[in-house]
Amino acid sequence: MKINGVEIEDTFAEAFPIKIGRVLITAIDEYWAGIAATEATGFGTSVIMCPAEAGVEKFIGPEDTPDGRHGVYIQICHMSEKGLEQQLLARIGQCVLTAPTTAVFDGLPDSELRFDTGNKLRYFGDGFEKKLEVYGKTMYAVPMMEGDFLIEESIGYTDGVAGGNFFIFGRTQPSALMAAKSAVDAIRNVDGVITPFPGGVVASGSKVGANRYKFLKATTNEKFAPSIKNEVEGSEVPDDVTAIYEIVINGLTEDAVKEATRVGIEAAVRVDGVVKISAGNYGGKLGKYRINLHELF
Amino acid sequence: MKINGVEIEDTFAEAFPIKIGRVLITAIDEYWAGIAATEATGFGTSVIMCPAEAGVEKFIGPEDTPDGRHGVYIQICHMSEKGLEQQLLARIGQCVLTAPTTAVFDGLPDSELRFDTGNKLRYFGDGFEKKLEVYGKTMYAVPMMEGDFLIEESIGYTDGVAGGNFFIFGRTQPSALMAAKSAVDAIRNVDGVITPFPGGVVASGSKVGANRYKFLKATTNEKFAPSIKNEVEGSEVPDDVTAIYEIVINGLTEDAVKEATRVGIEAAVRVDGVVKISAGNYGGKLGKYRINLHELF
Amino acid sequence: MKINGVEIEDTFAEAFPIKIGRVLITAIDEYWAGIAATEATGFGTSVIMCPAEAGVEKFIGPEDTPDGRHGVYIQICHMSEKGLEQQLLARIGQCVLTAPTTAVFDGLPDSELRFDTGNKLRYFGDGFEKKLEVYGKTMYAVPMMEGDFLIEESIGYTDGVAGGNFFIFGRTQPSALMAAKSAVDAIRNVDGVITPFPGGVVASGSKVGANRYKFLKATTNEKFAPSIKNEVEGSEVPDDVTAIYEIVINGLTEDAVKEATRVGIEAAVRVDGVVKISAGNYGGKLGKYRINLHELF
Amino acid sequence: MKINGVEIEDTFAEAFPIKIGRVLITAIDEYWAGIAATEATGFGTSVIMCPAEAGVEKFIGPEDTPDGRHGVYIQICHMSEKGLEQQLLARIGQCVLTAPTTAVFDGLPDSELRFDTGNKLRYFGDGFEKKLEVYGKTMYAVPMMEGDFLIEESIGYTDGVAGGNFFIFGRTQPSALMAAKSAVDAIRNVDGVITPFPGGVVASGSKVGANRYKFLKATTNEKFAPSIKNEVEGSEVPDDVTAIYEIVINGLTEDAVKEATRVGIEAAVRVDGVVKISAGNYGGKLGKYRINLHELF
Repeated sequence: MKINGVEIEDTFAEAFPIKIGRVLITAIDEYWAGIAATEATGFGTSVIMCPAEAGVEKFIGPEDTPDGRHGVYIQICHMSEKGLEQQLLARIGQCVLTAPTTAVFDGLPDSELRFDTGNKLRYFGDGFEKKLEVYGKTMYAVPMMEGDFLIEESIGYTDGVAGGNFFIFGRTQPSALMAAKSAVDAIRNVDGVITPFPGGVVASGSKVGANRYKFLKATTNEKFAPSIKNEVEGSEVPDDVTAIYEIVINGLTEDAVKEATRVGIEAAVRVDGVVKISAGNYGGKLGKYRINLHELF
Repeated sequence: MKINGVEIEDTFAEAFPIKIGRVLITAIDEYWAGIAATEATGFGTSVIMCPAEAGVEKFIGPEDTPDGRHGVYIQICHMSEKGLEQQLLARIGQCVLTAPTTAVFDGLPDSELRFDTGNKLRYFGDGFEKKLEVYGKTMYAVPMMEGDFLIEESIGYTDGVAGGNFFIFGRTQPSALMAAKSAVDAIRNVDGVITPFPGGVVASGSKVGANRYKFLKATTNEKFAPSIKNEVEGSEVPDDVTAIYEIVINGLTEDAVKEATRVGIEAAVRVDGVVKISAGNYGGKLGKYRINLHELF
Repeated sequence: MKINGVEIEDTFAEAFPIKIGRVLITAIDEYWAGIAATEATGFGTSVIMCPAEAGVEKFIGPEDTPDGRHGVYIQICHMSEKGLEQQLLARIGQCVLTAPTTAVFDGLPDSELRFDTGNKLRYFGDGFEKKLEVYGKTMYAVPMMEGDFLIEESIGYTDGVAGGNFFIFGRTQPSALMAAKSAVDAIRNVDGVITPFPGGVVASGSKVGANRYKFLKATTNEKFAPSIKNEVEGSEVPDDVTAIYEIVINGLTEDAVKEATRVGIEAAVRVDGVVKISAGNYGGKLGKYRINLHELF
Repeated sequence: MKINGVEIEDTFAEAFPIKIGRVLITAIDEYWAGIAATEATGFGTSVIMCPAEAGVEKFIGPEDTPDGRHGVYIQICHMSEKGLEQQLLARIGQCVLTAPTTAVFDGLPDSELRFDTGNKLRYFGDGFEKKLEVYGKTMYAVPMMEGDFLIEESIGYTDGVAGGNFFIFGRTQPSALMAAKSAVDAIRNVDGVITPFPGGVVASGSKVGANRYKFLKATTNEKFAPSIKNEVEGSEVPDDVTAIYEIVINGLTEDAVKEATRVGIEAAVRVDGVVKISAGNYGGKLGKYRINLHELF
């Protein structure tokens, strides 16, 4: 299969279940909403050595938020409920409550799975906090130096999907990179997904475990490493390829991850010097979800 | 004392020792250098519940980096050496190695205190990594999907200073906030310091411990909370003040933190509606460093 | 009338007919689409001394553009058809054709009013240009140093509306400014409008003509100038106001300008220290359109 | 000659005299300084069809500005003194005076060549303006809706250099483009220069006049157009090149333009897929300045 002249390999991305908490941050303008969201989702690329996977999902305008201010949805992802609860508490408490002009709303009001994150964070008020019914929601107002911080009583989470992915093969590194950036820009228009790696892009696609250094959980995916293609038996780097980037996608549902994969690939193949699209899997042995590239188009 | 008509309170900021690792990240352009730096320093406002305090120090041009590419210094701060080593490993490994086009250099080449972070991260190469002498340094080249990732063998750290601070009192919240933003913009021109909170600004200045909820390490500094000034005995919120922001500064040396405090205050007092500058301390009981505001000018 | 506790004055904005050309620029990613749009709409705040009024309307994703790339709509406004044609030619030719990776599409395909801008700009190809039928449109491909530049044969324009406006009164300058910024951020979500002044905000609201310097077409609106409120007879600056900003809105239709006015005001009144909203008019003597503030809510 | 493995052609850039006015804009923070600078320098890529060539030179911190606020230098360039005076008046009057929180200072205080721009713009005050001696300078304070706008009495200009340039040849379009972006980022660290094209990059390098459409002042430089290399006799596009970008540099002195050329080329050659650097000239017949690439290193 080819799209815009670029080969789409007949393979699938293998993805995994993960717990996802979704938070709506509002603030005085887009800049400060973005600042809080960025701080709260930093150090959050992969659960291998980060305390969570996290990312900015999308910005929304004042017409679409409960308090008529500028909003941004973030997602925090963890393998365990306990871990997710702790990460929501720490990231909201340290990176959103502390950020100028923010308020925090539940980003999954329809979910039955919930943490009482707001109820826990209200203790920062040291007895001066107040419970309010406002915007049709139960909120706490916590008096602080900037004024009152408002947070909804509970935050919803869901059984989501992690590790959706595709690979972009480039004749030059900038071709693969600009295609990756274009894909990430495009995926930002899809509801319900995040691309948790730096700027949405993975430079260091990995394999599970190691051939040589057995003490590691993940090491370089040497079959896709262009600089050693002549040293590695069974290298999957085509002759004319000097760089490969991976886009990793987490999302609230498998459908959202599929849609993001489709939209991302369609953007990537418009970029000069992109020669192939593929995806990463473990032969279907590890993950619950299979996203077959050819079925997306 | 008044500067530009704004009262500078005769008080001092109380600061603490902390271990600081400094890393120079280079990348293909400023955008990607910034992306890696932001991801690596996220979720890093306060050691109270973040795994580290972290921030972006400054960008430098290709003429000033070892590899002739765009550079950015970041600082990672932790109370313990062991904790700092782990955080450098995790944040560089998960947020810089994974980021497009980056290389990592030691940001404190003159320090005798060092971690072999590069030597540990090279294992990601699973045996394909190579040791190089390049740019007058010992580096590892780790083959990855985007090409080779270069990292210097060891990263220096130092005994730095955390918790330098000042308070900005505003007649309106936007006055205090724009003054805080202006101060942070100005502090970015001072070498050797970071402002680890979101966008450099603290909305929720805290006191140590709690009056009521004794299980908490830090709670709202109610004497500086404008919305409850009539409920709190001994409130230090002046009549005409509706919001206060705090700038927290960490740095490699006490002098750097002092200079940043001076530069930040001078920028803040240019903003309309700023009525007072103060600073936070614990009566000198807890911190090793005292930064007296009046001595800065 | 009060919204969120802020007085909305019972007055109207007076707006004028203007010719508006609308262009869709596509590019390799959002950054480069934005760069071209910004350059093409610069030096375009007011027809008083700028060659046109111009602004960025909105960004759209690759799923919504003819060529599957990232897009941005811009508007160029002029009082005369001849002036508009010249400005479209100059601004597209000098600021979009010259910008990396761009293509240009007609932004008003349903309009019968059209200029053959693409047909004129193709001459830059010096005989090497080619006419194409692609994306269901008639385009020219102009060979250049970066590759081929694609531009649609003709660009549509329409009879639009200029000078929609409202005033934001602040207790401090930062209050009025952050409210203005928040309003501009919100207005960006409304289709069909631009805010042509710098960052969308006017610091220098003016009156037609002059009292003293009769050779000028526009001078300061002294009745709304806070620093001279005690010198000006009939000053309309309330006691507690130190700064006023104006938002000026141009749009394809009167309805779009009304909607933007409503959305902008609703965002502005959320900001601390905003005490009043008003609008500018000439008693209804000059403009064809009256946008009554109270009728918007 | 090769740098980082990339061929530097033995040729020269041909540059021309131009009049340059330099303005220092200050504002409440970097964001608003940048907004005013961007608006004032837009629609300013080439004097062929723009009313001026213009660009942002560099940002400076509050410690380095007369009023202790954030600053940015811009340059406005024109072939004639009369044209330059008109452009300074229109661009400062419409795009800086109108922008929030700005003040305007002369950016060339040592130059004897001056326009009384501030003295002319003060008339906007309609008699309420005041002359001040402040910051060691003669300024006017013009009362406006946001408060007082301050502008220095006169603005200096100089005999500068336009059209310094170099070409970047890429194996893919993204390689050439990311190299161009990296060069522009690097050049921003050189004092006294601007890169007036969109984002600093020219996609459409041109030749003087035309072969076929004689009514045009400039047309595509077909010998450097990759898509028609097989149609053009004497094409200078190497076999493996699919895109070429040009960086155009204006500056206060020939030395500054030379330094920017050197710094830009050194940044560009670090990018994967860049195969050659050259420069544009007219055989030395038209321009007063020759910048020989090989002499820069």
